[in-house]
Amino acid sequence: MNDETVLLAHGSGGKMMKRIIDEVFFSAYAGDVLRRADDAASLPIPPEGARVALSTDTFVVNPHFFPGADIGRLAICGTVNDVATSGADVKYLSCGFVLEEGYSIDELRRVCASMAEAAREAGVEIVTGDTKVVNRGHGDGVYINTAGVGFLPAGRDLSAVHIKPGDKIVLSGSIGDHGIAVISSREGLSFSTTVQSDAAPLNHLIAAVVEAAPDVRCFRDPTRGGLASTLNEFAEACGAEMHVNEADVVVHPQVMGACEMLGYDVFQVANEGKMVCVVPPQEADAALAAMRGSRYGEEAAIIGEVRAGKPRAYLHTPFGSTRILDMLVGEQLPRIC
Amino acid sequence: MNDETVLLAHGSGGKMMKRIIDEVFFSAYAGDVLRRADDAASLPIPPEGARVALSTDTFVVNPHFFPGADIGRLAICGTVNDVATSGADVKYLSCGFVLEEGYSIDELRRVCASMAEAAREAGVEIVTGDTKVVNRGHGDGVYINTAGVGFLPAGRDLSAVHIKPGDKIVLSGSIGDHGIAVISSREGLSFSTTVQSDAAPLNHLIAAVVEAAPDVRCFRDPTRGGLASTLNEFAEACGAEMHVNEADVVVHPQVMGACEMLGYDVFQVANEGKMVCVVPPQEADAALAAMRGSRYGEEAAIIGEVRAGKPRAYLHTPFGSTRILDMLVGEQLPRIC
Repeated sequence: MNDETVLLAHGSGGKMMKRIIDEVFFSAYAGDVLRRADDAASLPIPPEGARVALSTDTFVVNPHFFPGADIGRLAICGTVNDVATSGADVKYLSCGFVLEEGYSIDELRRVCASMAEAAREAGVEIVTGDTKVVNRGHGDGVYINTAGVGFLPAGRDLSAVHIKPGDKIVLSGSIGDHGIAVISSREGLSFSTTVQSDAAPLNHLIAAVVEAAPDVRCFRDPTRGGLASTLNEFAEACGAEMHVNEADVVVHPQVMGACEMLGYDVFQVANEGKMVCVVPPQEADAALAAMRGSRYGEEAAIIGEVRAGKPRAYLHTPFGSTRILDMLVGEQLPRIC
Repeated sequence: MNDETVLLAHGSGGKMMKRIIDEVFFSAYAGDVLRRADDAASLPIPPEGARVALSTDTFVVNPHFFPGADIGRLAICGTVNDVATSGADVKYLSCGFVLEEGYSIDELRRVCASMAEAAREAGVEIVTGDTKVVNRGHGDGVYINTAGVGFLPAGRDLSAVHIKPGDKIVLSGSIGDHGIAVISSREGLSFSTTVQSDAAPLNHLIAAVVEAAPDVRCFRDPTRGGLASTLNEFAEACGAEMHVNEADVVVHPQVMGACEMLGYDVFQVANEGKMVCVVPPQEADAALAAMRGSRYGEEAAIIGEVRAGKPRAYLHTPFGSTRILDMLVGEQLPRIC
């Protein structure tokens, strides 16, 4: 394609839209289903598929490229992870672009290449899509919505409502990396070591935990609102107390330094490649071992437990004190996903 | 909710995001599945479901409200219609919002109410969602992505590749209404009669046609690029000629007048409540009767036929001449969906 920037006509439904679809999107990641270009993709249900899992996420991160990832990788990983938390085998993605008139086609190609790579790694297929173009000065170059479809085998019903007192809380690795990577990149902050986003597809990690700990209660990825939001959501859903030992939660030194400098609570900072799961105590070690054996779970740890009580989350500090781990109230880090 | 406009914190993942979700989105259209607020919705596959149909569309129409419809109604109908074209029973929608900081909560409620009404009419359920907020001056108040899931009974395989010479082309009603309604509203054009958008869910109309004409080849809704794009896509897919009689295509007089005034080819103007189907000749009358018996098909007509030849679309005028019905090349009416 000779066009160097996005034109309004690329969203017209006419020949130019066909061209950007063929030469940018299809050439980056189309398989047989997407290439059919039907209005709806027709997808087989696997023999063991008893239910469909559906999730969606729109990505408006600013800037589009930052250490460790970019908006394309996020757009795949974020939705893959949301679908995978249900215990589903994630299979298919839809993809809706909002492009700004004048956006660089070269940059769009880089975003699509990153999507293609993340989709390959996750083992998912982009099967249907849509392209809209908004006038120059609106949007922000590119926004990407993805919706994901997975299949749940019969009897699999993971949900925070199943959490019980005595259960253990397992976290797949360090917290705060993604939010700090994006904000550092945006604000031009530099640290002695660059903080890398942790954005990663965690569907294989989840599958390994489900196999090793078949009574696992639920998974959730602590994205916007951070680990604090996830734990509060768990507490609300099951009506019990979540207790976390601060010493068991991995925070990389440069992330901790950035949080101190910027006045952020690292427990409220977003992650894009971490998973929290709650398991019955007798399966905690198996779940931990499964995480640690997975590509993105080397730093996994059992970080706490569930106790009977009012729905609240508590953090036990290394100094013996306890504080309430509250949900974020205002806005801390806008546009980080 | 006391907030009068969208705040960045409404996209934070924290308490304020929970509030806008509960008090605006859930109160407008949440059923049991959405209220569970799991990261992924878990949905039953019906016994006859042999395949899953998936489609997505993002809506960036400007203005948000225009005669006959609004961005909320479009966001439901557009995706319902895309999924329904496959012959699937449309069941579930995901919904991703991109909100602009400062956008009116009252207007957002009106958009959500319109979505709820269109979803009820279509008989579909919004089961999962996402909310992002972008800074003031970016976006345009609200963009909405919906992805739709439907189920295809075993053996149903509708596709333009099945079109054969001799087949008839059936159109469910007048063309050009939606595009002209939006552009008139945006440009402040007024005609003696207001042109109303035709935005409508057509899944029930399609189901009626499939029942009456079981050998129907395919459906497509002529949205961006208009009827001309749809016919050219059909021609490409089946490798044959599409012939349409202009006299059989209904165009409302005020739409024709607007097209003449603005220099638009009505065959390239978008529709949001029309369906084209191709049927074998022996089922054409049954398909037509089924459309005419449906709420949105009173003006349905057999508008042409398929002939062997090179993939092209032709329009036969009432004066006996024939012209090639080409796809739109540039951009005619940006932001009409």
